[in-house]
Amino acid sequence: MDNPSRYLDALVKEFTRLPGIGPKSASRLAFHILKMRSEDVKSLAGALLDLKENIVRCSVCGGISDSGICSICDDKNRDVSLLCVVENARDVITIESAGGFGGYYHVLGGLISPLDGVGPDELNIRELIKRCADVSPFELILALNPTIEGDATSLYLAGIITPMAITVSRIARGLPVGADLEYADSATIVKSIEGRIRM
Amino acid sequence: MDNPSRYLDALVKEFTRLPGIGPKSASRLAFHILKMRSEDVKSLAGALLDLKENIVRCSVCGGISDSGICSICDDKNRDVSLLCVVENARDVITIESAGGFGGYYHVLGGLISPLDGVGPDELNIRELIKRCADVSPFELILALNPTIEGDATSLYLAGIITPMAITVSRIARGLPVGADLEYADSATIVKSIEGRIRM
Repeated sequence: MDNPSRYLDALVKEFTRLPGIGPKSASRLAFHILKMRSEDVKSLAGALLDLKENIVRCSVCGGISDSGICSICDDKNRDVSLLCVVENARDVITIESAGGFGGYYHVLGGLISPLDGVGPDELNIRELIKRCADVSPFELILALNPTIEGDATSLYLAGIITPMAITVSRIARGLPVGADLEYADSATIVKSIEGRIRM
Repeated sequence: MDNPSRYLDALVKEFTRLPGIGPKSASRLAFHILKMRSEDVKSLAGALLDLKENIVRCSVCGGISDSGICSICDDKNRDVSLLCVVENARDVITIESAGGFGGYYHVLGGLISPLDGVGPDELNIRELIKRCADVSPFELILALNPTIEGDATSLYLAGIITPMAITVSRIARGLPVGADLEYADSATIVKSIEGRIRM
């Protein structure tokens, strides 16, 4: 018996199931909840349930949305000639908050990974091909993670989309801004030399 | 506009209010919630509300409890001669999970801090004195943080309890187990020499 309240125990257990939250953080969070005002706890609990109950898939890009079409796909002021392909809905938000991209997105919902039983048919690829045929963007930017699965998916998509007379590009690999050559891994250095740009 | 869902936005905002959770972790957690099964999200939300609604203060030690008296105060098998004074209910759990202490606890609910307007009357000290008079433990162990407020509170309590013919002790200060003298701060080294123990 190391916990005088089973309600506290229960919440600590719930918190430890979340990613990146260990037993110490979970306990710290639970005690913080205990000190919060009731309205604030209700608002947190409500936000959790609301998210789960109300979010749907955007029928255009496959990302997340509160209604049928997400606010990005619904925005007529974006650049229709650029279509950026990402792995998941979170990547859309990451790129959006970095700023600098004004086109539309397409969310695959995963990467091709034969070992995990994920082939092209399990991903949102058929819709991508259809969308490319319908909208025919000038350029398809593949913004997938620089991993084996990401590379395999990029190669697969380039093989299909390039024959449709659409430029297919891939986001650059190289040293992160602010990094130090001395501490970079050799694969990144090789990629940064391969991907050098004329000044 | 950098987020395609206001429900997601709302949850991310709720998460960032919690201690130790920045915008990136909040977004990661929110996307994890999105992937969780509905039952699991309901269970998390329920645990949050349950904690807030059902936890009460233990009428004996001032810690947290699901009913009037907490499970530690209710446990007749503990050593009635030892009473450990801690700042808050979380410290009880920390000491309990470390093991090695078999007595009872008393939770002050804070530390004396004149700058924050917290004096002895704001803390659970009157009950501690009454409890010492009623139970008359052999030893009162002050397990308060080694800070200015912790030390002030310890001195204040020692001044009141010692005349009641109760041994008052304070937990040891020194090098943490596994630490390296080379990296210890000088205040800790001074305390570890002052608090040396004959072998």
